[in-house]
This record gives sequence, C-alpha cells and structure tokens, in this order.
Amino acid sequence: MNSANSAPHVVIIGGGFGGLQAALGLRRANVRVTLLDRNNHHLFQPLLYQVATAGLSPGDIAAPIRAILAHQKHTEVFLAEVVGINKEIREVTFMDLTSEAERTITYDYLVIATGARHSYFGRDEWEEFAPGLKSIADATEIRKRTLLAFEAAELESDDARRAIDLTFLLVGAGPTGVEMAGSIAEMAHREFTGNFRHFDPAQAKIILVELGPRVLPAFPEELSQKAQSDLEKLGVSVRTSTRVEAIDADGATMNGERLRARTIIWCAGVEASPAAKWLGVEADRAGRVFVDEKLSLAGHTEIFVIGDTASAKNRDGKQLPGVAPVAIQQGRYVARVLKARVAGKPFEERFRYFNKGDLATIGRSKAVLKLGAIKLSGWIAWVAGLFVHLFYLIGFRNRILVIMQWAWAYFTYQRGVRLIVVDSHEHAASGAKQKSPPVGGLS
Amino acid sequence: MNSANSAPHVVIIGGGFGGLQAALGLRRANVRVTLLDRNNHHLFQPLLYQVATAGLSPGDIAAPIRAILAHQKHTEVFLAEVVGINKEIREVTFMDLTSEAERTITYDYLVIATGARHSYFGRDEWEEFAPGLKSIADATEIRKRTLLAFEAAELESDDARRAIDLTFLLVGAGPTGVEMAGSIAEMAHREFTGNFRHFDPAQAKIILVELGPRVLPAFPEELSQKAQSDLEKLGVSVRTSTRVEAIDADGATMNGERLRARTIIWCAGVEASPAAKWLGVEADRAGRVFVDEKLSLAGHTEIFVIGDTASAKNRDGKQLPGVAPVAIQQGRYVARVLKARVAGKPFEERFRYFNKGDLATIGRSKAVLKLGAIKLSGWIAWVAGLFVHLFYLIGFRNRILVIMQWAWAYFTYQRGVRLIVVDSHEHAASGAKQKSPPVGGLS
Repeated sequence: MNSANSAPHVVIIGGGFGGLQAALGLRRANVRVTLLDRNNHHLFQPLLYQVATAGLSPGDIAAPIRAILAHQKHTEVFLAEVVGINKEIREVTFMDLTSEAERTITYDYLVIATGARHSYFGRDEWEEFAPGLKSIADATEIRKRTLLAFEAAELESDDARRAIDLTFLLVGAGPTGVEMAGSIAEMAHREFTGNFRHFDPAQAKIILVELGPRVLPAFPEELSQKAQSDLEKLGVSVRTSTRVEAIDADGATMNGERLRARTIIWCAGVEASPAAKWLGVEADRAGRVFVDEKLSLAGHTEIFVIGDTASAKNRDGKQLPGVAPVAIQQGRYVARVLKARVAGKPFEERFRYFNKGDLATIGRSKAVLKLGAIKLSGWIAWVAGLFVHLFYLIGFRNRILVIMQWAWAYFTYQRGVRLIVVDSHEHAASGAKQKSPPVGGLS
Repeated sequence: MNSANSAPHVVIIGGGFGGLQAALGLRRANVRVTLLDRNNHHLFQPLLYQVATAGLSPGDIAAPIRAILAHQKHTEVFLAEVVGINKEIREVTFMDLTSEAERTITYDYLVIATGARHSYFGRDEWEEFAPGLKSIADATEIRKRTLLAFEAAELESDDARRAIDLTFLLVGAGPTGVEMAGSIAEMAHREFTGNFRHFDPAQAKIILVELGPRVLPAFPEELSQKAQSDLEKLGVSVRTSTRVEAIDADGATMNGERLRARTIIWCAGVEASPAAKWLGVEADRAGRVFVDEKLSLAGHTEIFVIGDTASAKNRDGKQLPGVAPVAIQQGRYVARVLKARVAGKPFEERFRYFNKGDLATIGRSKAVLKLGAIKLSGWIAWVAGLFVHLFYLIGFRNRILVIMQWAWAYFTYQRGVRLIVVDSHEHAASGAKQKSPPVGGLS
C-alpha cells in the first residue's frame, strides 16, 4: 500500500490525542504519513461521560480523522485494526475493516498510540454486568441502561423491586466515576422531576465505591474532600476503602456485603492496548510498553510508543499518568524528533511533561481543579473547566454545539439526548424477536 | 396498571405524530391517559434522511416522549411493545421492554397510532442488502454503510472493485429517495473533496431508480421534472420506469440488467403496523385498518385508528396519504372527539384533511414545494422548507441545534456527524472478533 514517493514513511497507529498530534506535527515534514485507526473518528474522551448521561450527542465529541487531516496531502488515513508488527522487516499487519481482509504496510518510522481500555483485573466476566466507558458504543450502551432503569421503575408496581431498579452502582472514584455519579444524581434529582407518575426519581440511590481511602486519588487531599462533599450534596452516597468482590446480573458484593442494583458502571482500572504483544516486548503491570527518554523502544529508535500505551517516566522518575495532556505533548514531541531525524539534524532534547492541571467536573456547575499550586473548587472551577474542555475540543463546529447544549442544559435543567436506541442487531440476535412485527409510533 | 381514578381511561398506542397530538389534545380533558411506545422518544421522521447522511445527530431529531408530556399530570408513558388487543374486554397486552414481561392494561377508549414500516413487497430477504429508513437505528445503519463504502474505496487498489464500492443504488424516488440521493451526491461531490488520497470521491455513482414514469409521483408533473433535473445537476443518475427484480450482496438486477453496487438503500413501499391483526379486522393491501369518517373502527366507536396505520378517505373519496400532516390533524381531531364524548356533548363533525402542501428537499439549497396552487422550486422552496421543518420540530432546543448545524453545513460544506460506530453487539456476534484486542487510538 506504499506509493512510489521516496520520502520516509511514517506509520501512526491510533488517531486519539497522541496519534493525531503526531500526524498534525508532521504537517510540514518531508515524510509520507499513514494513520491507521479502527474508528473513523477522533474522540474527545474527557467528555464521553456526557454522552453516557444523555447530555451530549456522540457527534458532538467526535470528528472524522480524515477531515481533520484533509489539508495534509502527504497523509493518508485507513480504517484498519492492527493485528501484528514485524520489527525486523518493519511491517505492520492490519485488518481492513471494510472488507475484513488482512493487509500489510511497511514503515521507516512507527508511532504506536493505541490507547487503553478499561480492565477488570482478570474478572472479564464482570464486563457484561458492569460496562466500562472508553468508546462511543460504550457510552450509548451506558446511556441506554441508565434510561431503561428509570423506565423499568415506572412500569414496576412492587416497591422493593423498584428500589433495585433505581439503584446505580459506580465502581471507581477517579474523574470518570465522579463525573458519572454527579451526572446521574442530577438527572434523578433535577432533570427528571415531573417526568414519572409512579415514583419520584429523587428516590434513586447513586452509590460510588472506591477501593482507596478517598475519591480522586490523583488530586490533592483537600480537593478530594471538596469533591466528596459536593457529591454528597447532590445525593450521591460515597463509600471509600470498599473492595468489590463480586458482580453479577443482580448486583454486587462489597466488603462482604451484598447490594442489589439494576445498573452497575465500571469506572475502575485501565489496561493498555496489546502493543507489547505485537512488538514481542515486556510490558508493565498495566500492559504498557517501556520506552526511553525519547519515547522510543529500546534498540529501536525508529519505533515510538506514546500516550496510554507507553510506560514513560518524567524527569523526576515518576510514572506519567494516562491522561490526554500527556498523550498530546508526547505526540507533538515525537513529530519534532522525526522532523529533525529526516532533516539529518541532531535532536538531543528529552521528553518532559508539563502538567497544566487536573480537572474533575461534579455535575452542574461544580468542579475541582488543580492548576500548578492553585487549587480551585465550586463554580469558578467549573467555568474554568468548561474553557479547558472547549479549548481542546477538536473542530469549531463541535465547540459551538457543545456550548449551546451546555447553555441549554444549564438554564433549563433538561438533558437533550435522552435516547434509548434499540439497534437492529439486538432484534436480529434474538430468534423470538426477529419476526416480531414493528410496533409503536413511528418506529 | 390502572390507578384508582375513575375518569375514563384513554390508551394511546404510539408516540409518533398522530399519537402525540392525540395525547397533547387531551391536556385539559377529564380523562386518564396512558401512552405506550416501544421507543422512549418521539422521532421527527421527515429529517431522518439527514441522520442517515451524517448531517444531523439522532438526538437532534428526537425528543423524549415523557419530557414532552411531563406537564400533563393525568398522562403516564410506558416503554412497551403491544402484542395484542382484546376488543371484547377492552384490554391491551404489551411487553414491558424493560423486563420482557407481558402485562395488560384496560381502556375505555383506544387510539392506535402505530405507524408504518418499509415493505419489501414480499421479498423480505432483500432487507439485509438494502436497509430501509424508518427508525434511528435504520438511519445510523445506513450512515455506517455509506461512510464505510468511501473508506473501502480508499483501501481498494483495484479500480473495478473500487467502482463497485463507490456505487450507491437508491430504490424508490419518493421524497425519501430523492432526499437521500441528493444528500449522498453532495457528500461525494462537495463535502468529501480533499478527504481521500487514492481516488476522487466525485467518481461515486449515485443511481436513483423508480418503478413509475417520474420521480416524486405524488407531486405535480412540473415539479417532478424540476426535481429530476436538479438531481442530475448534483450528479445523480435517475432511472424511471425501472423495475428492481433482484437484490443480493453483490448488487441488483433491474429491467433484466445487472448492476454491481456495494450500497443499496430501500426507499420504496411502506406497510402499516400489524394493528389489523391485533384487532382481528380486514386490512387494505398496505396492511392499513379501514376506519369510518370519524376515524373509528366499524362497530367500535371507542377504538380510533389514525396516521399511517389507518386507511381513511378524504371527503373527495381519495385515500389520504401516509404523511406527517395527516397524522397530526387526525390526532388532534380524535382528541376533540374524545373531549366531547367524555363531556357528554354531541360531536357530529367528520374528519377532514387540510393539505397545507408537499415538500421534497434536494441537497443543499434546492427543494420543490407545492403549497395549494403555488408551486415553488429552487432556493426559495428550500428556505420555505427549512421553516416548515423547523416549525414542526418538537422542542425549542432541537430547533436551535438544527439551525446551527444547517448553517454550519451550508457555509462550510462540511457534514458534522460522520460517525461510524461499531457497536459492541457486532463484536460479540462474531466469535473470532469477540476476543480480539482493542486497537486504534482512543477506541
């Protein structure tokens, strides 16, 4: 799949924050670039919880990768799922997702930016009952389950069973767990008011559990306390130092105690994509590939691994966190290394992460924010967070739409995207349903 | 599931245009209302083609039914799929879609507004290869297929196979077929310009076939001609008097001739929901239930059938068309009949349809519009059509968002929602894929 052009060929795997910045950084370099992603869109993952809680549409936080790169004529984009890498002959094998055929592509330089996925710490059987949140399909699945729980409560006449329908358990109190819990609590306590006839949606129990001693473990303790008290004011019950021992269709067991819940959402650990396996190299406990100070694989200066897939240390010897700003800065850095390399110039600068801050949003108009030595909470942190998100949101159109929808939600207390979509596959999957006649309005 | 309240109980099946207007019309009536729909949202179906062609998000053209009816305290909404009706004991049996359990509900008055679905005229095996467009799941499926075709062309190195990837066949040249063909042509000829490296998207062949002698058969002949010439200017190849004889994975046979095409979209006939079967009554050829001049079932003045499910005649003896304005006016009419009935007042007025006009949009800034004796085409018809759509779009928020997105698309030639979402069910469905590791950016 290589063209006749003789410029060095850079293959980038993954169009997330890291891969996209690497590609954009090579805009004016004398290279050919091929970007492979198994999705056609770049996803603004920090706002994915808003899709999962019906605040935004999937299209608002996603932009087609090939449209973002349309003006880089030396860059091609393929919809492809990588299945292997041969370091010796510098070849990537991928599945063409439009035909399911296997193809290969050779590279002079390789940038691996394939991200991470949620991990169940060896308990993969929990995924069915407690979906995680990494992709748009994950988000719409969680949205469907959450909205269906309230619909079930409206149809349920038994009070005890209704209480189970209205119990939401969120496992893991990192930013995603905190943001999801806050959003579901607001849905129940504010936006759904008056929407149901057989129960008060404020009866919903939203429980956020965390193995560690406090919420937002990566934040300063002061902000963890503030976040917990904000969550409790919204009606979230926070349980720290709590270990989840079992999850099934009926609920979960935590610290030996049984909790019945219709909806469980997994916001705990992540696990890197299988790049280490493709490369045949050692990985750390989270599956990440060890890289040197220039983000290269040992002995392979032509291979870079960045973002959530890389196990990289900062100058102070601390492991870099799996957050978007790290991936963005690493992508830009790799583009600079490559530009120097192909121009035959020396490049000695090591990668250094500049931490601009940490942010977690807690429902409508509350957030906690750490900006260097500055710690903010409450409304001012929320407004600052709004601008941080918008600044990074790819595409002018998406920025405008997100502002509009937030303004709408803010002033009306209404969520815009309360959609339960029963997809055709579900119907096709169940034999009994397959032939069932279409019913219900303009279905 | 009945409350103790002794007011007459009106059960409405379907929250589309007809059912929703019936419910809203009973706002101040001394009744209890139960609305059943198998979706939680009212769908603005006339703009569904925009979702299928990546112009709008599903959330922009859908609004939660229970939010629309939140202020009507005597109205409850259930997420339910009707499976049967017993006219003698006045009971509806439905499946509770949150638990898959069967439940029953009794009524004093019943309004059936369950719409229609596309019909393959007995060739249901064609659906797999040529999906139709009635639900949000249909629209996102067509969006996925259309976008995937261009992705496949980018990965294809054989010119002949690429030409098949880039062939789009639309069957049926009613408003949906015309609007879809125009939208896909604009995508290919304008919005995708510069997005691909291995082919020119303007090479795409968009073919619109129609069994009858002209496009838009329900419009005046003059407007049909105008629409056809507008489509041809956009690059659509129109084939009238053409019968589709076979459809398979590889293409279609039409008038004895074989056409190879990767993407086929069904925009032809519709078939009513199975209300006639539930009621145990005769149906017309399209499966619609015959109703009298007050939209009631013969011998059952307590049962009303409206919208696409009803076979009703206008005063001039002509069959009423299956369009949104008919359903809306019928829903309002039934609410008035019921209000008079429960108040013990006489009501002799028969239903009469007031045709405000017909509209078909042909891509960016072209349309044909018939408004009484006035026939418009071109830009002015398009602007008029914009206001007609916006006027009927439920919810202020949706109106603003749709204006914003249209303005964006109009001034930038960019579609906002080019999302290919590979849902978790597809992965689960294929054994080989189920265990495949997650790859690709922030997937």
